[in-house]
Amino acid sequence: MKIDVCYTPDLIHQFDIKDKTVVVIDILRATSSMVAGLGSGIQSITPVATIEECEALGRQGYVMAGERSGEKVAQFEMGNSPFDYMNPALKGRKVATTTTNGTQAIELSKGAKEVIIGAFLNLNPVVNHLMKSNNDVLLFCAGWKGRYNLEDTLFAGAVCNALKQNAEFESDSALCAFFLYQSMATDLAYYINRSNHAARLSKFNLREDIEYCAKLNEFNVVPKLIGSELIV
Amino acid sequence: MKIDVCYTPDLIHQFDIKDKTVVVIDILRATSSMVAGLGSGIQSITPVATIEECEALGRQGYVMAGERSGEKVAQFEMGNSPFDYMNPALKGRKVATTTTNGTQAIELSKGAKEVIIGAFLNLNPVVNHLMKSNNDVLLFCAGWKGRYNLEDTLFAGAVCNALKQNAEFESDSALCAFFLYQSMATDLAYYINRSNHAARLSKFNLREDIEYCAKLNEFNVVPKLIGSELIV
Repeated sequence: MKIDVCYTPDLIHQFDIKDKTVVVIDILRATSSMVAGLGSGIQSITPVATIEECEALGRQGYVMAGERSGEKVAQFEMGNSPFDYMNPALKGRKVATTTTNGTQAIELSKGAKEVIIGAFLNLNPVVNHLMKSNNDVLLFCAGWKGRYNLEDTLFAGAVCNALKQNAEFESDSALCAFFLYQSMATDLAYYINRSNHAARLSKFNLREDIEYCAKLNEFNVVPKLIGSELIV
Repeated sequence: MKIDVCYTPDLIHQFDIKDKTVVVIDILRATSSMVAGLGSGIQSITPVATIEECEALGRQGYVMAGERSGEKVAQFEMGNSPFDYMNPALKGRKVATTTTNGTQAIELSKGAKEVIIGAFLNLNPVVNHLMKSNNDVLLFCAGWKGRYNLEDTLFAGAVCNALKQNAEFESDSALCAFFLYQSMATDLAYYINRSNHAARLSKFNLREDIEYCAKLNEFNVVPKLIGSELIV
């Protein structure tokens, strides 16, 4: 089993995903929120690229969720906070969501053998799933508008660390994500708080979102893309 | 003064280089060899993109140097080893060179306010130059065929570390290069030897090249691109 890391959507052309399990990672906050929502009873989440697509699903009864550049889209019922997604009123509902980075990365992952959703909130379930399926893995960091970011790389490194006895690191991207995680593992929240994206979000008073997204294994779910829907 | 890191040529479109000093980094081995050669008395090095351009300069009296995928180009006088470049017979000569990654990154840097060449072999001179010029800096890793690599990122991290009191890290790329360097600084050669590119080169018995390229401050030179030539 081989494991590799793509640091940003701008590098995805370097990888052949068709026989791989792709783990999409957008720690702040899209994939964390997806895990929290599907772990709290949301029936399905449909990621879409544009606000207009989201609105079209809204007219079919979906709850509309999403942000642009960190801020809730004004006319939507909810933004991109994991706390929004854990609202008990959403149990059994279908949600449509569009975000700056995470939903774009999911779109680019279509064509892979399997697409799943990873976050610190479901680290161990993701690792167990990857070990069981024994497929080659690409950890795909959503980044920030095509740019590298710390928190997604750190999660990729956490998966590499957990799989180091079982998987061969295919490139220096995997090796360095692993080393970075090893140097930061003692205090993930501290390092994530030092990231550029955390600084951006703190302007919107989202400090508690950031703290929550650094928590480990709050949910025992592995969201999987089936057609255009994420389900567990 | 701001400092940022571009991890691979495939991400250079994300950076506005026109008012910046760009430091081109290809530790294994192009920029290490350039520093060794210009530090040993070569008059100038002209990086070119293709074998044909190199041959054209060869017909004008330039020494032809270069590699493709790590191997010397058969009809050239020298490959891409720092030891080739330190040959005393090259004193006062002009060299034309083409390599897989480094010369391509130099080409992509044209248009910057200033382009200089960095390697562990001239780390302190590069840092001193950057401090004195007080210009915004982009550390540009040549990578491997567009992909991220460990050794170039590690050098970028070493520069970030040296400038951390003087410069603001512009992005997580700079921050993570810095953290990676801090976790590996105690034994650079060991970590560089674990890189993918070191594994590729060791197939060609280039172990002593790799060891040499991990040495610090062997040469007190800062090669600079003037027109199409690197000089000191």
